[in-house]
Amino acid sequence: MMNIGLLGCGRIGQVHARSTAQIEGARVIAVADAVPAAAEALAVKTDARVQSADDIIASADIDAIVIGTPTDTHYDLIHASARAGKAIFCEKPVDMSADRIRDCIAVVNDSGVPFMTGFNRRFDPSFAAIQSRLRDGEIGDVEIITILSRDPSPPPIEYIKSSGGLFRDMMIHDFDMARFMLAEEPVQIFAVGSSLVDPAIGAVGDVDTAAVTLTTASGRICQISNSRRATYGYDQRIEVHGSNGMLRAENILENAVEFAGPDGFRKAPAQHFFLERYEAAYRAEMAHFVDAVARGVAPSPSVEDGLRAQILADSAAKSLETGAPVSL
Amino acid sequence: MMNIGLLGCGRIGQVHARSTAQIEGARVIAVADAVPAAAEALAVKTDARVQSADDIIASADIDAIVIGTPTDTHYDLIHASARAGKAIFCEKPVDMSADRIRDCIAVVNDSGVPFMTGFNRRFDPSFAAIQSRLRDGEIGDVEIITILSRDPSPPPIEYIKSSGGLFRDMMIHDFDMARFMLAEEPVQIFAVGSSLVDPAIGAVGDVDTAAVTLTTASGRICQISNSRRATYGYDQRIEVHGSNGMLRAENILENAVEFAGPDGFRKAPAQHFFLERYEAAYRAEMAHFVDAVARGVAPSPSVEDGLRAQILADSAAKSLETGAPVSL
Amino acid sequence: MMNIGLLGCGRIGQVHARSTAQIEGARVIAVADAVPAAAEALAVKTDARVQSADDIIASADIDAIVIGTPTDTHYDLIHASARAGKAIFCEKPVDMSADRIRDCIAVVNDSGVPFMTGFNRRFDPSFAAIQSRLRDGEIGDVEIITILSRDPSPPPIEYIKSSGGLFRDMMIHDFDMARFMLAEEPVQIFAVGSSLVDPAIGAVGDVDTAAVTLTTASGRICQISNSRRATYGYDQRIEVHGSNGMLRAENILENAVEFAGPDGFRKAPAQHFFLERYEAAYRAEMAHFVDAVARGVAPSPSVEDGLRAQILADSAAKSLETGAPVSL
Amino acid sequence: MMNIGLLGCGRIGQVHARSTAQIEGARVIAVADAVPAAAEALAVKTDARVQSADDIIASADIDAIVIGTPTDTHYDLIHASARAGKAIFCEKPVDMSADRIRDCIAVVNDSGVPFMTGFNRRFDPSFAAIQSRLRDGEIGDVEIITILSRDPSPPPIEYIKSSGGLFRDMMIHDFDMARFMLAEEPVQIFAVGSSLVDPAIGAVGDVDTAAVTLTTASGRICQISNSRRATYGYDQRIEVHGSNGMLRAENILENAVEFAGPDGFRKAPAQHFFLERYEAAYRAEMAHFVDAVARGVAPSPSVEDGLRAQILADSAAKSLETGAPVSL
Repeated sequence: MMNIGLLGCGRIGQVHARSTAQIEGARVIAVADAVPAAAEALAVKTDARVQSADDIIASADIDAIVIGTPTDTHYDLIHASARAGKAIFCEKPVDMSADRIRDCIAVVNDSGVPFMTGFNRRFDPSFAAIQSRLRDGEIGDVEIITILSRDPSPPPIEYIKSSGGLFRDMMIHDFDMARFMLAEEPVQIFAVGSSLVDPAIGAVGDVDTAAVTLTTASGRICQISNSRRATYGYDQRIEVHGSNGMLRAENILENAVEFAGPDGFRKAPAQHFFLERYEAAYRAEMAHFVDAVARGVAPSPSVEDGLRAQILADSAAKSLETGAPVSL
Repeated sequence: MMNIGLLGCGRIGQVHARSTAQIEGARVIAVADAVPAAAEALAVKTDARVQSADDIIASADIDAIVIGTPTDTHYDLIHASARAGKAIFCEKPVDMSADRIRDCIAVVNDSGVPFMTGFNRRFDPSFAAIQSRLRDGEIGDVEIITILSRDPSPPPIEYIKSSGGLFRDMMIHDFDMARFMLAEEPVQIFAVGSSLVDPAIGAVGDVDTAAVTLTTASGRICQISNSRRATYGYDQRIEVHGSNGMLRAENILENAVEFAGPDGFRKAPAQHFFLERYEAAYRAEMAHFVDAVARGVAPSPSVEDGLRAQILADSAAKSLETGAPVSL
Repeated sequence: MMNIGLLGCGRIGQVHARSTAQIEGARVIAVADAVPAAAEALAVKTDARVQSADDIIASADIDAIVIGTPTDTHYDLIHASARAGKAIFCEKPVDMSADRIRDCIAVVNDSGVPFMTGFNRRFDPSFAAIQSRLRDGEIGDVEIITILSRDPSPPPIEYIKSSGGLFRDMMIHDFDMARFMLAEEPVQIFAVGSSLVDPAIGAVGDVDTAAVTLTTASGRICQISNSRRATYGYDQRIEVHGSNGMLRAENILENAVEFAGPDGFRKAPAQHFFLERYEAAYRAEMAHFVDAVARGVAPSPSVEDGLRAQILADSAAKSLETGAPVSL
Repeated sequence: MMNIGLLGCGRIGQVHARSTAQIEGARVIAVADAVPAAAEALAVKTDARVQSADDIIASADIDAIVIGTPTDTHYDLIHASARAGKAIFCEKPVDMSADRIRDCIAVVNDSGVPFMTGFNRRFDPSFAAIQSRLRDGEIGDVEIITILSRDPSPPPIEYIKSSGGLFRDMMIHDFDMARFMLAEEPVQIFAVGSSLVDPAIGAVGDVDTAAVTLTTASGRICQISNSRRATYGYDQRIEVHGSNGMLRAENILENAVEFAGPDGFRKAPAQHFFLERYEAAYRAEMAHFVDAVARGVAPSPSVEDGLRAQILADSAAKSLETGAPVSL
């Protein structure tokens, strides 16, 4: 039985708590949050104790730390947890600075603790199936990847301001998906972007509509587009075209009902947001972490995967700023 | 080059004229209609001469007669054409009376002329593909067939009165489809029906909503349902379930556009009516007739197929009337 | 907090235990099973005590009894639970005999305890949405309902022997769905059936392929077909055609991946079996039971709904036997 | 009745002849081809006379010239036809050189003859419907356009050599679609490309896999990708995301049949190539030309549209060569 200390009891922390409750072989036994009431509420639901993050990391009965706190706290918590010899699961992004992620890699490598970056989409049943079938050669060599991601609506402008920008906050998931599917590192990135959804987003220096082109050394191409709005739900699609065929994942709809009337045939909107859309992914992600640590193998995606995605996001931002492609 | 005399210049006659114009190896050279203006109009379009039906049948330069006149005239025209040695294509139903169809079979067999019954749906690319794949064993033995047919709206009540009723006018197509797919003759039929669409239809003794169950000697089952209305276009679906899988044909939509908005994902209505929906089928049907006659093989569906479908329609009407299944 | 005593720790009992674990406001505190090891195993997972069914029913700390034992034990357990004043959730079928269900209705009514019949499909998100939208008038008056249900493969022949036959074991769910959607009681039923899947099923006097036609007083029609096999997963579809449109629920596929290659576009098989396909339905069903009892309103479907479905199943069997429609 | 002289009796000339045969109000009365046998064959089918291109252009009974000859002959034929006062329909591309297209614009403007560029895809029922619905504001302001085009297989290498390259030969259609949908001119283009399908294509200096990003002054983004292969048919998709929703056109499949078996649900491949896929578009295109000329209004797309698409293709080639975005 793996005893987990959960740092951060907000939305994502609660997701991980719910996932863990459904996994045999792991349980959350301690929770921490800067807001005591949040910690108390989750402690009641999970039958866990409330402690400070430091105390949890120092507890002898804790095997693994799940970090779901604000991004700027990850660095210190990773360092402390690694030094305490705990297995670490850390939400994405590991850090906003690639250099600081490199520091984290160093401490993780030094301490030899298992580390997993929370790119949950790798565990979505459909995306995981595509990647597995790619690896099995079902469509031959990958040639063109098309990723479309659209949020139902933009987050509050206060969130935008401290988010690191669309590339680091939103498209970072797509960068990880691109790497997951391409089976080859991108060597060049080109980004365009604009503020079409809300002028306030443009006013704080961010974009809400963006497109990126990645190319690899062998000539594979990946096109990504993002929008901070979609009236029809949370739009999450990936398509991989290969030498022998194509694999794609369409949206997951709210239900399987189709209405037919004078205007035609109408299906439900896409599942509305990430907690619902990626519920199965979050559960599989945590199950993988628990299983990998229990079996003594390295969980994946690694902290290096977190770094690579961050570098792509940084480079996209640079490409947008300079108007030129950036070599990686 | 097959020279065709076209009897009946109404809606269906015009369809056959258009189809023939696209077939190399055949041309309409003479047209007839009880309404002279209708014949004249089609003659201009097809560059054909206008004659009486009798004169066309008697003409030495005519190789084949296409009969698209009202049903009650088919009997005499078939007899005359067969005796004149012409190849015959006759619209469904061959006649409203099974006995009179038997007379037609006799004269056709006596004269040895090629005869084809116009069950156009056998030539729909999707339905034809299903039947061909069934015959090739793709889904093993046929077990359950489900046929759903719904017209966009009921015909005028005057038409209903002289139509022979829903089973003979509308479901007869589905009976032919059932026979086409079952690969075994039905041995029992059970029908239910009601007037839900328009009370006027019930008032003249017909139904507008009906369902039939057919069974074969080996235990295969076919369920058919019909409605005289569908707000979303002309609904035409067939599904065949077999021991190794399932084959089905979904509706053909007006276009391939999908809209996504707050209410979900919306595709176009089904193609609106039979001229549009079965345009390719009508063309393929006439091409088959021309080709079969040219090659000296019997065209299909035969006049016996016309009889079999009529018997099913008569038996459905009897089952509805008696409230009991009818043995065939 | 509702304290639940769970009788029967087999497959379906485990489902209800898992569902309850996700419902705030209820918990399983005692479990019973004729096989002690089964009870023990589930007790460990749910942190419940093991007792005999009688002791559970007699326990003062038990608020509700969930009955998931073999069908022939339901009668006695319902009687005992009702007399003990416990709220009752009973798996379908309530009993194989309509008369004995009437006895259960009597005791339930006498004791005034809440009672719910476990027709889980009413709680499937898609089917529930259809029914709710029907009730809201989205497609006007219901005219034709088409229900297709196919199991991936037949159960063991030993199970078939004691199952009561396809109509009582399998199609009973579809009868309940028909009643749920028709909003009017059927007045006539006609059934056909055969043994096409496995001759052994026919040898024990059952059918594995069947079709039923229901009609209501106002002329609404429902066609149901069942097969004990489907190579492409668990096939569960319902379509309702009304005066203003159509609502249908398509199958739920294993994932959202589509492959395209020389043979065309291929999606995943349907979810394989009922535990997976109806997981959400089972959860919503138990949540409804807990919520209704807590709020003091009658849960639905009721014990009368259980009776009505059983009468339809009995009548279908009689129609198949006699070859004639049966009035209800 | 518009009398058409058809220059070029190859594949595309035959398409236009077939389309014209179905249009009331126009007929092909003269045909020309550098290969006499090709002209003779089409003359027989269309009941037209064979003449030289010069003679056709000079004929008093000719109202309009349809140019379907090799691209390098367009320039002279346009000049001659314009000077002869004939209405002109010219296949895309008008010319491989933007400067030479400007010359054509000059002569067309000087002579005042109607001129239409043959971008057939604007007349595809689905694409036309999208554009019309965009113009009607159905999804608000256009934000992101995604265009995916894949040929079933690359053309012969000899064709590639003289094709002007993928951007001018294949993606030019997508550039026109982008302009058709964007409702705003692109101000920047960035292209990447590689040779993944056939090394021989790379060896002659062309690419077979490419992606382009277009941006407009207001910040709209269009991503296009092309491949010279697709194992599942002719892949032709367009999606437009706007402030109020999304409109997309999926592929047209060979038929409406779906097979279900152990591997899941399988639909037919996409219609195989452009003659089949765009048959309706070619017909509507020619009908528009005939109708516009008859009514004295300017047909669309214009010769300027031909120029704009060519400039985008030239700029894409330049971007690929320089590795940098190109301003327009």
